[in-house]
Amino acid sequence: MTGRRTGRRPGKQDTRRQILTAARATFADRGFDRATIRQIATSAGVDPALVHHYYGTKEALFRATIEAPIDPAVVLPAVLHGDLEHIGERLVRTFLGIWSDPDTGPAIRATVRSAVADEMSANLLREFFATQIVRRITHEIGVDEPPERSAMRASLVASQMFGLALARHILRLEPLAAMPSEAIVPMVAPTIQRYLTGDLPAEST
Amino acid sequence: MTGRRTGRRPGKQDTRRQILTAARATFADRGFDRATIRQIATSAGVDPALVHHYYGTKEALFRATIEAPIDPAVVLPAVLHGDLEHIGERLVRTFLGIWSDPDTGPAIRATVRSAVADEMSANLLREFFATQIVRRITHEIGVDEPPERSAMRASLVASQMFGLALARHILRLEPLAAMPSEAIVPMVAPTIQRYLTGDLPAEST
Repeated sequence: MTGRRTGRRPGKQDTRRQILTAARATFADRGFDRATIRQIATSAGVDPALVHHYYGTKEALFRATIEAPIDPAVVLPAVLHGDLEHIGERLVRTFLGIWSDPDTGPAIRATVRSAVADEMSANLLREFFATQIVRRITHEIGVDEPPERSAMRASLVASQMFGLALARHILRLEPLAAMPSEAIVPMVAPTIQRYLTGDLPAEST
Repeated sequence: MTGRRTGRRPGKQDTRRQILTAARATFADRGFDRATIRQIATSAGVDPALVHHYYGTKEALFRATIEAPIDPAVVLPAVLHGDLEHIGERLVRTFLGIWSDPDTGPAIRATVRSAVADEMSANLLREFFATQIVRRITHEIGVDEPPERSAMRASLVASQMFGLALARHILRLEPLAAMPSEAIVPMVAPTIQRYLTGDLPAEST
């Protein structure tokens, strides 16, 4: 490695890291909607085609910046679509499964830890939540409600689900931490059901 | 200060810090119940009377190790005692108030950040939760339930309340972060009410 110190062409890993660093700064600074692959490529000093080659779509690059091991565009519609009476149950079961899965759980815990420790990571997670998660919930169940109402439902759901992940996997509060997922589902599902589809008080209370 | 470098008697601040460091290690290692002021004093190399002088009771010293700015022995009975039908509302209103209060909110956020970042801080917060919070909830409302059942109710409440603090004050998810506390109370109170007093499914589900 030391022999390459003065070389002008960085290796593939360096290029990927440069792109990711530029993407983190751009998404955190401009937000997902206003950030472009072209800007990120310019900031990383590479061709836009290389960004697409390494990371695919803008959504996929955004997921990479927060190290999200799952794609909300795949997971959320499957949870939200279908029998509205059991949507809370499906959501809780799906997320408990993702957190416990050795392929996805550790990365999600790392994302939460980073967001708690570091302002830029928190900004990225917040922006990810607003553009990649809330919009899909709005799209699936919020058709007859104003978007602010759906965003409120989504942030209430997030408060319970982030808190459940924190209590179970990071703080490991007992007995929650030791309970099997299937025992937790019927305890928490009614909360999520109410936040998503229940009659909530008006925000102007 | 440099003139004192070789002095054998540390200053007051040093002594307090030594006691706190010894207390953190002892509580994390042995747990609250088995830790004694005498052990902590020995480990810090000071007289037990000095520990009492600086920190008061074992409970108060434990609160100091996790930098808890409030005393659950004062706050919780006031929340839990009284009209059982509105206990959820009282709990949510009280905690939203404590988090928003400039005297107590920053210290609580620091405690959560530490517990997420650091294993020993997480152990201390977990132990604090189990011995200082769950026991009081058990004592106030759990008289006709087994202690494990009360502990489950307490950890469900903690999952929602920690998650609300995380969403509102650390991740700042909108619209939750911008909403006045009084608008949030009626949204979250029914969740807490059900966790504390509702018919929850059996744990053996």
